[in-house]
Amino acid sequence: MDDDRPVFFHLMAYADDADRDVVDMVSGDPDWEPPEALREGLRSFADAPVADYQYPPSEGLGELREEIAARRGVDVERVVITNGAGEANYLAMACGLEAHTGNEVVLTDPVYPYYSGRTEMLGGDARFVPVDEDGTLDPDAVRAVANDDTALVVVCSPNNPTGAVYGESVKRELVDIAETHDALFVSDEVYDHYDFSGDFHPALSFDSPNVVVTNSFSKSMATTGLRVGYAILPDHLVDPARTRHMLTNVAGSAPGQYAALRALRETPPDYYAANRAMLRERVDAFCDALDEAGADYTRPRGAFYVLVRFDGYPGTLENVERLIDEAGVAGMPGEAFGSSREDWIRFALVTPRAEEAAERLADHFG
Amino acid sequence: MDDDRPVFFHLMAYADDADRDVVDMVSGDPDWEPPEALREGLRSFADAPVADYQYPPSEGLGELREEIAARRGVDVERVVITNGAGEANYLAMACGLEAHTGNEVVLTDPVYPYYSGRTEMLGGDARFVPVDEDGTLDPDAVRAVANDDTALVVVCSPNNPTGAVYGESVKRELVDIAETHDALFVSDEVYDHYDFSGDFHPALSFDSPNVVVTNSFSKSMATTGLRVGYAILPDHLVDPARTRHMLTNVAGSAPGQYAALRALRETPPDYYAANRAMLRERVDAFCDALDEAGADYTRPRGAFYVLVRFDGYPGTLENVERLIDEAGVAGMPGEAFGSSREDWIRFALVTPRAEEAAERLADHFG
Repeated sequence: MDDDRPVFFHLMAYADDADRDVVDMVSGDPDWEPPEALREGLRSFADAPVADYQYPPSEGLGELREEIAARRGVDVERVVITNGAGEANYLAMACGLEAHTGNEVVLTDPVYPYYSGRTEMLGGDARFVPVDEDGTLDPDAVRAVANDDTALVVVCSPNNPTGAVYGESVKRELVDIAETHDALFVSDEVYDHYDFSGDFHPALSFDSPNVVVTNSFSKSMATTGLRVGYAILPDHLVDPARTRHMLTNVAGSAPGQYAALRALRETPPDYYAANRAMLRERVDAFCDALDEAGADYTRPRGAFYVLVRFDGYPGTLENVERLIDEAGVAGMPGEAFGSSREDWIRFALVTPRAEEAAERLADHFG
Repeated sequence: MDDDRPVFFHLMAYADDADRDVVDMVSGDPDWEPPEALREGLRSFADAPVADYQYPPSEGLGELREEIAARRGVDVERVVITNGAGEANYLAMACGLEAHTGNEVVLTDPVYPYYSGRTEMLGGDARFVPVDEDGTLDPDAVRAVANDDTALVVVCSPNNPTGAVYGESVKRELVDIAETHDALFVSDEVYDHYDFSGDFHPALSFDSPNVVVTNSFSKSMATTGLRVGYAILPDHLVDPARTRHMLTNVAGSAPGQYAALRALRETPPDYYAANRAMLRERVDAFCDALDEAGADYTRPRGAFYVLVRFDGYPGTLENVERLIDEAGVAGMPGEAFGSSREDWIRFALVTPRAEEAAERLADHFG
């Protein structure tokens, strides 16, 4: 399969079945609490009138779209609510390939596997731009690959799996490259609340017709299963995206949208700040303990993943399984993210036992 | 647009804005109560552990798939949970077009507009088979149109908008036609609980590799906004459908799936029987009052729509708007369902005021 979910599930099940205690750092599923207002929104929906149980507008609940549009400073017509950022990226990529010239899709290596999987499904030709070992993306490398056959440039920042944060100048360059080649720059910003560097810059600031921004409440509100996300589209892609969304999904889920609206309105900034601070502590504790193990790693500047390389121990599925059995720590094989990280293993900091996991790794490899 | 949602919303808003009382019979949104166990499932989810708020398995919650598989007598591997029957039909049509020879899609006329919209989006060539005035589908007419370039045959029974129910022999013929031409028969059975004729026959009974059955809880549990449906696929389409589902939506909504599971397990047969009986009464009351109006109509054998023709009053959007203003009854223009019903207007029996609406129509046209 050209995506990482089956590997996720396989490894989570493998860790569950292991004959020992295992710290599970496989998936990107947050282990912290969603906002109380989100739970309250679901409680309230449970007692809502019958009419609220019926189709929401296909493009999403009007109030939710307005709330997002006001926060992002865009016309509400540009906002389409989707089944998580996953569908938002699917719509942006499908509509971008149809509306923009060319068939090539510029992706980074390592890559979030859904991007490459979608490219293949949509019949696009993936062109991979390697990033530096610490995850830094050189826009000149993107420029060197881009051409008039480029239809899409798709990046995620803060990045999964590298933890890199592409700053304002990089994003400005990506917008310019997209404009130069009549391409669409798809800026996936689902980890925007988990920027430890202060460098995160929203692509919407550039006000370009060649930019789509995708996001969701999955990570920021610790609820990947709610499946409420959105795309903010340039005018020329609004109708195609709405039509494709309608013909694919008819509409998104009503309880999730009502709950997200309530949570968006009522959740104080403290909620996000506390989770960001908690993750920053996990990052520090995990990385400091890795120093003891003498492992190479990239200290994430955002998101909540750490790529680690143990000398002579490549990031294959087999080695990851051995690590579960022998060290009691479960990660994701780097090979799932493209050829450039085959020697690496990704650990998701979705457990309060991150430091303990790093100590186990230090003991095992030390 | 090649689908009916915008017309739905336009007309519902038009009816809301009208300067008089209007009986809204536009959409297929049930006005009766979802099962209490469904509300209870949402209440319970609101207090669930954080882990339940994360990605459910992409192919759907295991227990929900098992519950469906057991009820339908199929291997659980064949069940994929989708974002309503809408996504199930999308997956079936997209994967069927890819896996089966040919590019033609056989649809009925009148047609549920999403089928023709999806056909266009997927690059298929629609071939329409007119049904009789009462909605009866002649399988020989399908056979006459089908050929080795036919990839899909898509029908809905009980039917929206005609109210026809295709019995066992018709479905057997459709399966045979699909097998003859290496096509996929997509049997949309979302109205299976609203069969007044006793003739409804599930396509799964034929055990053919050329059949996909799609369904959802939207209509049977009066919750079109929950967005929980499913496809039961033949073995060769399971992997393609799971991959496409994953790359489109990642996963379905967790609260909806937990709620549907609870409702499926705990809702007694009385719930479905009571709603079916209630709708049968609405059908009778509405149709009897239409007799007073001297209108042509088709008495539905299933589902909850009535197509009506008023002499010299074609089913255009303009005429439907006039009917809102002048008679206080809102329906859907027949032209939304294809060329054969341009003279007709569809009324959805989703209001306890159906009889009153018919009396208003009788007064207006009488």
